[in-house]
Amino acid sequence: MNQSQQSDRPIATAQDGLSYSYRAVRAETEARAAPLSPEDQQVQSMPDCSPTKWHRAHTTWFFETFVLSQQAGYVPFDPAFGYLFNSYYEAVGSRHPRPERGLLTRPTTETIDRYRVHVDRAMAKLIDGQTTPDALTDLIALGLHHEQQHQELLLTDIKHAFGLNPTRPAYQAGPERPAPNSGAAGWVELPPGIYEAGAGSDGFAFDNEWPRHRHYLQSCRVATQPVTCGEYLEFIEADGYRRPEFWLSDGWAAVQREGWVAPLYWTLWDDGWRVFRLDGEGSLEPTEPVQHISHYEAWAYAAWRGRRLPTEFEWEAAAALHGVEQMGIGCVWEWTSSAYSPYPGFRIAPGAVGEYNGKFMSGQMVLRGSSWATPRDHSRPTYRNFFPPAARWQVSGLRLAEDM
Amino acid sequence: MNQSQQSDRPIATAQDGLSYSYRAVRAETEARAAPLSPEDQQVQSMPDCSPTKWHRAHTTWFFETFVLSQQAGYVPFDPAFGYLFNSYYEAVGSRHPRPERGLLTRPTTETIDRYRVHVDRAMAKLIDGQTTPDALTDLIALGLHHEQQHQELLLTDIKHAFGLNPTRPAYQAGPERPAPNSGAAGWVELPPGIYEAGAGSDGFAFDNEWPRHRHYLQSCRVATQPVTCGEYLEFIEADGYRRPEFWLSDGWAAVQREGWVAPLYWTLWDDGWRVFRLDGEGSLEPTEPVQHISHYEAWAYAAWRGRRLPTEFEWEAAAALHGVEQMGIGCVWEWTSSAYSPYPGFRIAPGAVGEYNGKFMSGQMVLRGSSWATPRDHSRPTYRNFFPPAARWQVSGLRLAEDM
Amino acid sequence: MNQSQQSDRPIATAQDGLSYSYRAVRAETEARAAPLSPEDQQVQSMPDCSPTKWHRAHTTWFFETFVLSQQAGYVPFDPAFGYLFNSYYEAVGSRHPRPERGLLTRPTTETIDRYRVHVDRAMAKLIDGQTTPDALTDLIALGLHHEQQHQELLLTDIKHAFGLNPTRPAYQAGPERPAPNSGAAGWVELPPGIYEAGAGSDGFAFDNEWPRHRHYLQSCRVATQPVTCGEYLEFIEADGYRRPEFWLSDGWAAVQREGWVAPLYWTLWDDGWRVFRLDGEGSLEPTEPVQHISHYEAWAYAAWRGRRLPTEFEWEAAAALHGVEQMGIGCVWEWTSSAYSPYPGFRIAPGAVGEYNGKFMSGQMVLRGSSWATPRDHSRPTYRNFFPPAARWQVSGLRLAEDM
Amino acid sequence: MNQSQQSDRPIATAQDGLSYSYRAVRAETEARAAPLSPEDQQVQSMPDCSPTKWHRAHTTWFFETFVLSQQAGYVPFDPAFGYLFNSYYEAVGSRHPRPERGLLTRPTTETIDRYRVHVDRAMAKLIDGQTTPDALTDLIALGLHHEQQHQELLLTDIKHAFGLNPTRPAYQAGPERPAPNSGAAGWVELPPGIYEAGAGSDGFAFDNEWPRHRHYLQSCRVATQPVTCGEYLEFIEADGYRRPEFWLSDGWAAVQREGWVAPLYWTLWDDGWRVFRLDGEGSLEPTEPVQHISHYEAWAYAAWRGRRLPTEFEWEAAAALHGVEQMGIGCVWEWTSSAYSPYPGFRIAPGAVGEYNGKFMSGQMVLRGSSWATPRDHSRPTYRNFFPPAARWQVSGLRLAEDM
Repeated sequence: MNQSQQSDRPIATAQDGLSYSYRAVRAETEARAAPLSPEDQQVQSMPDCSPTKWHRAHTTWFFETFVLSQQAGYVPFDPAFGYLFNSYYEAVGSRHPRPERGLLTRPTTETIDRYRVHVDRAMAKLIDGQTTPDALTDLIALGLHHEQQHQELLLTDIKHAFGLNPTRPAYQAGPERPAPNSGAAGWVELPPGIYEAGAGSDGFAFDNEWPRHRHYLQSCRVATQPVTCGEYLEFIEADGYRRPEFWLSDGWAAVQREGWVAPLYWTLWDDGWRVFRLDGEGSLEPTEPVQHISHYEAWAYAAWRGRRLPTEFEWEAAAALHGVEQMGIGCVWEWTSSAYSPYPGFRIAPGAVGEYNGKFMSGQMVLRGSSWATPRDHSRPTYRNFFPPAARWQVSGLRLAEDM
Repeated sequence: MNQSQQSDRPIATAQDGLSYSYRAVRAETEARAAPLSPEDQQVQSMPDCSPTKWHRAHTTWFFETFVLSQQAGYVPFDPAFGYLFNSYYEAVGSRHPRPERGLLTRPTTETIDRYRVHVDRAMAKLIDGQTTPDALTDLIALGLHHEQQHQELLLTDIKHAFGLNPTRPAYQAGPERPAPNSGAAGWVELPPGIYEAGAGSDGFAFDNEWPRHRHYLQSCRVATQPVTCGEYLEFIEADGYRRPEFWLSDGWAAVQREGWVAPLYWTLWDDGWRVFRLDGEGSLEPTEPVQHISHYEAWAYAAWRGRRLPTEFEWEAAAALHGVEQMGIGCVWEWTSSAYSPYPGFRIAPGAVGEYNGKFMSGQMVLRGSSWATPRDHSRPTYRNFFPPAARWQVSGLRLAEDM
Repeated sequence: MNQSQQSDRPIATAQDGLSYSYRAVRAETEARAAPLSPEDQQVQSMPDCSPTKWHRAHTTWFFETFVLSQQAGYVPFDPAFGYLFNSYYEAVGSRHPRPERGLLTRPTTETIDRYRVHVDRAMAKLIDGQTTPDALTDLIALGLHHEQQHQELLLTDIKHAFGLNPTRPAYQAGPERPAPNSGAAGWVELPPGIYEAGAGSDGFAFDNEWPRHRHYLQSCRVATQPVTCGEYLEFIEADGYRRPEFWLSDGWAAVQREGWVAPLYWTLWDDGWRVFRLDGEGSLEPTEPVQHISHYEAWAYAAWRGRRLPTEFEWEAAAALHGVEQMGIGCVWEWTSSAYSPYPGFRIAPGAVGEYNGKFMSGQMVLRGSSWATPRDHSRPTYRNFFPPAARWQVSGLRLAEDM
Repeated sequence: MNQSQQSDRPIATAQDGLSYSYRAVRAETEARAAPLSPEDQQVQSMPDCSPTKWHRAHTTWFFETFVLSQQAGYVPFDPAFGYLFNSYYEAVGSRHPRPERGLLTRPTTETIDRYRVHVDRAMAKLIDGQTTPDALTDLIALGLHHEQQHQELLLTDIKHAFGLNPTRPAYQAGPERPAPNSGAAGWVELPPGIYEAGAGSDGFAFDNEWPRHRHYLQSCRVATQPVTCGEYLEFIEADGYRRPEFWLSDGWAAVQREGWVAPLYWTLWDDGWRVFRLDGEGSLEPTEPVQHISHYEAWAYAAWRGRRLPTEFEWEAAAALHGVEQMGIGCVWEWTSSAYSPYPGFRIAPGAVGEYNGKFMSGQMVLRGSSWATPRDHSRPTYRNFFPPAARWQVSGLRLAEDM
């Protein structure tokens, strides 16, 4: 799915537009699930992935648990769902083990259809029938942004399942494609000095983007375009996957253990490399940004080029100077060299919603930008995506940087 | 499903009845799959289990690969299926990894429906349109008995998946129930001497039942009925799962590692033990034969009673004296103390079909009898079922024996 | 160590010779440990192996726990040793985890020296100073045979550690060598009929050799000599390790998982195969019996030859006809096709000593004969050795059999 | 071992003092190994740890490989040692697998004694006999600081092995003890602004401390003393190990998986907590800094106190204001909230020595300060120690910080 296929509806979270936004986001989830059979929606191809059906139920569970359950008179659709579709919120009780999500053949896809309708009706009544208090509006907005995150995961997870199927089924005809680079990459230069990073007071942002704060940058420059498949192929052909000197120690161990020789979804056939995408397996496109690489591979590629990854602060500063559209928004997520840590002054919100981001601030690396799988209106220059350094099933590429 | 629910069709394999038998066996598979949704048919709850869809496809693959592919003019339904639905036959090429069967959302259930129809039509043409040579008749008979084995697995595998689901879904309303014991068990006495065991020349038998041969038995006696849930409960309540002196060393290690405290599918609630069956979770029935125990548990129970398991030869000799109906046919499979080994004079058949039984003669124990899940006409006194000693998801119980 | 290097002392267990036997067996253990440094005695190269120091302590613990602790006035050497040096006797309390035996740097080798002296003095006093009751004499005899078993393990375990050391250190100069075959192997023919197997009433035997009992054999023949390295090499060169048709299913899985291409301790150098023995790495000797193969490899070799392994009863019957010296006693242990099971009428002895053999009667295969590492006087035609089918670090080879 | 027991020799690396420093550092290693038996020096209690013998050999290998092998006429002690004692330097060839270091009973401890003498003689000749070029002096200094790092590991690794031994052996009589806190902790306040961090041009520093560079700090304050055992005990008694809300997600998973209920080496006896130290198990000392906790535990403790860990830059700035002696130098290493990353402008040195630090900049957290196990003169305010967040066998504690 590329951006042009997505519905063109803005997601306003102000109170007057809340009803409209709610319907738009919920409809987008269903649109993404529509090409998938009940069997497709059932499968969990690894513990990191979740079934489509689960994504559809869990995002609904979020509204039921954090919004509707607080309302007098709300009747839960099924009391068992509180256990089945909790993801990781310790504060709201125990939950079904993550690696066993794919074992739940019941409730069926059809039951989840009805679950979504049940909750949507109650939410419509809540949103439309009264003046929504600010705190509730904020919570609903959080629920919608949460659902948008799962919309991206829905696609990367089903892609992973299809990628393991020897018949390489297609999700749908319309191609998934990051926009190709236009010509050679240039550089954005950043002079040394004090910069600001993080989200300000207007517009929605996740807690991990707060507070906006000062930091100091040494002089450096950041590439204007992400690395392409053609450029990455040079690394492969230069024996990059067999030369430990370019790799982090953990990365080299992963190469050995996993037998990596190319990005995920690349297969070498007699007539050359072919790449599995959501529309099936096709030829490698040299000008397309490389995707589905781990942080380790991004680091090694940069080291082989004599360059490095930008920090997340360098990325954000370059985006401010260079323009966000040019920084790969809607193309591929870009690994940075920054470990995912709290910003100075970060505070975890009280209650279960406080488990949203803070407790994952260990062992993960920040990615910036957004991807072809990211819902429209779900990207911003301060957005901090994060995954463990060995993860490859996300739409993850890289951009080079260097000291000046 | 109990026996009375199964269709009442005999499975004749003689040439005149082959056509009828083929249709009857194939229909029984579909009848067993009928209560299951596409999601249910997709799931694989552990590597030992297979999805319903896979069972339906693999049994069809058997006819396509070993029968139809040898016929001029047969067009395979889909060339990829040769790889996807091979179980373990090394001689016919590589195959999809067993633990990943549950990842194959495509082909869909509906495609498997059409695959079965495609192969059934070609088989009907083959069987009806000519004089079938003996070798082909034998191969088709083997295919039908093979499919009957998978009919039992289809039920035990979906039971395992449903048993892991916190909502404990029911397969269908009609109860799965082993027939209860009638009164207390007595003993069949076996005098010492030379006996014969194994299949003779009339009627179908698997290769592992051949050749019929002599063996010597010491005097002993074998119980007339299998052990019941009520009797087994006494073992639990006597701390049987916490006393190593009754257990084989490997069995005791399994108890520790797996945390076993009762048979599979037993759960202790505030109001006592409840048992999950194919019609949902219900009360424990004391007169029902105990099932879903490992060989280790069967051994420990017998040791605690001061008795032992019968060997498979003792079982077969007792069945000859006592009558097969009395030996638990159609009730529960019964663990014996015999490791699964070749009979004296056993020869592996040449070709891929020779991989049917012989190569598994290591690390497994013999079970005798049959169960409520076994298709009608798929049991006989010489039948040798076999599973690893830690397996619990089969319909496995025990019968006591002792030296005289 | 070959037989000629061992001390030539008979092990009499009758009461008049008990004192002499005790000293002889204990001295043999020390003689086997003598070439090993404190570091060597410390190492545990895998959970199946134990440190030399542990073998020396555990065999001493056996006398302390089962004999001396029952005597009034005996003062244990160190109360902690009851925990540290228990192997698997559940009835005498908890114990140090087996895989962590190699972590015990303390007590030091020197402390174990003193432990052995302490126990030997108390034992001498017990044996010499009074009329030993029969039950005690039996227990001491069991302890001596137990120690002899550990004498063999002491050598196989240190060989395993040295075999993993890239410098391939030698245990001692004198060669470990199974006696070479003299000419080509012939066959011992067994007519069909009733035979007897198992230990009678005279002389020591382990509980698993009892009771002597009748069994029936079909006609067959058993080779007069074990398979040699030269013969086994033909299997390797015929691609035996790459052809699944000869292998048990579990065996083929082990080949894939472990990457086996030859027996343990064989290494292919530019100038051919070399074999690691206790005197270091040397050339392959074609007439030497092959050793350090798993049951799976033995089975596959026999299948490739169109033959099979003998059952343990066939082996014992052939030994009775052919003479035990000719059946590989003092050469290599020989895998049989028999799973390790209780003999008809077998009873586990009451108390901790009853844990000696019975509880291991699952998942293991019987080996018959004895090896160059077996202490003199620790072999007999009824001896049942047993190991899991994947084990290769024991002195395990094979002998062929076939139906007639 | 506390500081006062260490020799009082400064480690000068200037050319005139090189000879003296070399002898002093090498002697300190031997002094630390002296109380250990050959068995003790052999053991490897987990893959993260190395045997004492290996530490002694590997630090010697460093001089042989990187210094002596470049000198004409040097004869290596044993060519196999290049393989056996390489730790992780890919550029100098393959190496013995890390988890198997404890299997190398040969070379013996006594051989390593001679190896050290052999290399020390050659080094003395090299250092004393000529004008040492600057590059060589730098390399030797690096080797000495490298050896000092292993001196600390030698103690933490043998402590780990002894800690697993049920008899809790003592390393030596003199107590290992971090200095107790003097009174309650206060705070060092850091005003917002630009600070500098990292090593300047004078004195030795590892590559990861370079370059000295500017960064911006928000206002905050840092505690003047590390957290004590008494304070940490309050966290335990407040059910800290059972309340997920204080823990990072990965940390909570570690608590569940590993069963952590207290710091490593704490054991709850009937009469209260006891703590294993290098002089054996003793009582918990409330005023002593807590040690042997993971980064996860440090984070959770701080969260429970409503505080947080300092970043490594806050730590270094506080040390500059507060004085290094007050910042726990020689007491316990202190976890910071900083992931171990390259400083802006960091460059990996060419060649094998470049593998020293840079390739580990993934998945690890920075610790600052030094510990009772750190050799005298091997600490400085810019020193960056690093370990994975789950590591507990190092001398690791924490200090609190908070925003202002």
